[in-house]
Amino acid sequence: MRCIDWADGAVRLIDQTALPAEERWLEITDPDKLVDAIRRLAVRGAPALGAAGALGVALAAQRGDDVRGAAGRLRTARPTAVNLGRGVDRALARLADGPDAVLAEARAILDEEAKACRAIGERGADLLQRNRPLRLLTHCNTGWLAAVEWGTALGIVTVLHERGQVELVYADETRPLLQGARLTTWELAAQRIAHRVVVDGAAPSLIARGLVDAVVVGADRIAANGDVANKIGTYPLALAAARAGVPFVAAAPESTVDAGTPTGESIEIEERNPAEVAAGPAYNPAFDVTPADLVTAVVTERRTVRPAGGETL
Amino acid sequence: MRCIDWADGAVRLIDQTALPAEERWLEITDPDKLVDAIRRLAVRGAPALGAAGALGVALAAQRGDDVRGAAGRLRTARPTAVNLGRGVDRALARLADGPDAVLAEARAILDEEAKACRAIGERGADLLQRNRPLRLLTHCNTGWLAAVEWGTALGIVTVLHERGQVELVYADETRPLLQGARLTTWELAAQRIAHRVVVDGAAPSLIARGLVDAVVVGADRIAANGDVANKIGTYPLALAAARAGVPFVAAAPESTVDAGTPTGESIEIEERNPAEVAAGPAYNPAFDVTPADLVTAVVTERRTVRPAGGETL
Repeated sequence: MRCIDWADGAVRLIDQTALPAEERWLEITDPDKLVDAIRRLAVRGAPALGAAGALGVALAAQRGDDVRGAAGRLRTARPTAVNLGRGVDRALARLADGPDAVLAEARAILDEEAKACRAIGERGADLLQRNRPLRLLTHCNTGWLAAVEWGTALGIVTVLHERGQVELVYADETRPLLQGARLTTWELAAQRIAHRVVVDGAAPSLIARGLVDAVVVGADRIAANGDVANKIGTYPLALAAARAGVPFVAAAPESTVDAGTPTGESIEIEERNPAEVAAGPAYNPAFDVTPADLVTAVVTERRTVRPAGGETL
Repeated sequence: MRCIDWADGAVRLIDQTALPAEERWLEITDPDKLVDAIRRLAVRGAPALGAAGALGVALAAQRGDDVRGAAGRLRTARPTAVNLGRGVDRALARLADGPDAVLAEARAILDEEAKACRAIGERGADLLQRNRPLRLLTHCNTGWLAAVEWGTALGIVTVLHERGQVELVYADETRPLLQGARLTTWELAAQRIAHRVVVDGAAPSLIARGLVDAVVVGADRIAANGDVANKIGTYPLALAAARAGVPFVAAAPESTVDAGTPTGESIEIEERNPAEVAAGPAYNPAFDVTPADLVTAVVTERRTVRPAGGETL
């Protein structure tokens, strides 16, 4: 199952803002409609955003639009997500070869992301598997909805479940937009994986009370030193996991690794609309940065890196 | 302003579930209606619960009800809150002296709580005050709504504000029941204190980014070693504050200190209705325990104790 794809001259994607109430698929034929879909999180998740960026450029090229103009608007629709700009740039690099070359590049990205996620799932499952089913904690949504196909952190959960190694998954509800409560539970229920939603503030104490064997999260950007930018609310999980001696694993494709960013300090933190949080005055940062010394492992499709052990990417 | 009081033969309290949309006052003449109000959090907050317990016993005594039966139901309406049982027991101890003695004891508790909170506010403000206005972070609601009058942690904020020493207050929204977003912002706005609501998951990263000078929270029960049980989502703030070298202060009346509980490990964690969190399967613990080594100071009306420095209560 893919959350975004090219079909019949359009970008076809599942509108994640309508889940879990409704499974609504959008057929997008205007690149600026795709920019809007990215902004309002109809499509979200680092790998899916890379695919969306590339497909948006391909769409503009197929239509004979001002491709560079569309690419600029796509690239800045979500400033923290490095994959989005990467996907845009890869598709744009084929522009001289014509619209079909651009589209072929976008489709190659989709295939690569799907394959990478399956590899991440296997690698992460190998890393975490013990001689008994695990109680896992995850944040936000990192399944096929976020990652074209399979998923990253949730891909690890899927592979562990295929191996009969999942006892229970705690899913942070993930305020303000509740991707965990809305999307992750929808995916887990579809796979018949036992799960419980918890409020974001509860997760650290669950870890402290010995209810969690491992924390698995995605990543929106990983700095060269192993600092991990991810959905707001990730950092407290890492703090609690480190104190409890529980593994904290960030799962993401290599495309999420930003070698040009030395540490998390230079990562721009996207500030979203305060109205997502409250009717009155609010501050709404979309991401936090988990320092490398709290990250037990970064799992990509190619390697397992241990930032807390001093390894860099 | 008192959130609960005795008036004209009834317990009069502001229904906190209706705030901030509506300021609705309830006149309760049946002790079991008060049990219900406590359970559904119409009245909440450790000091206010102590007052509610005592007033409930007084109400039963005034009516000539089975006072011990009512006391038992009041005591178990919220299992984690030590003040509730204390308030019940203090009022019950005067039963042999007649209904008016019971009522006088309940009213004495109200006066003591109000006086204690003002003292906590002054003491906490003295502790935190620097030579510049502070950026404070707080969790849940600990104002006059929670504490009969003045408030505990928010009482500190009020006194600092009276002294012109508050720049900004970050208020955790405090899922699942949003006491921060609903009640704390209502109290801060009424005092014209600058504030921003943040999702609970965001607060630890605000601390890490240097946006917070001190964390001030209340407490529902404090163990002899300084472990602090408080609203779910408190523990991650303490983890983040300790890592950032930011003071983490728990403010509560002496009645919250439970010398009979050696450490937080023996504190029962109340589990509330999963439906407060999500429509599907959820786990909903109402409190977490912050270990003493992360608690910079416990401030009561009588003393400042420094658990992180090895002091006990």
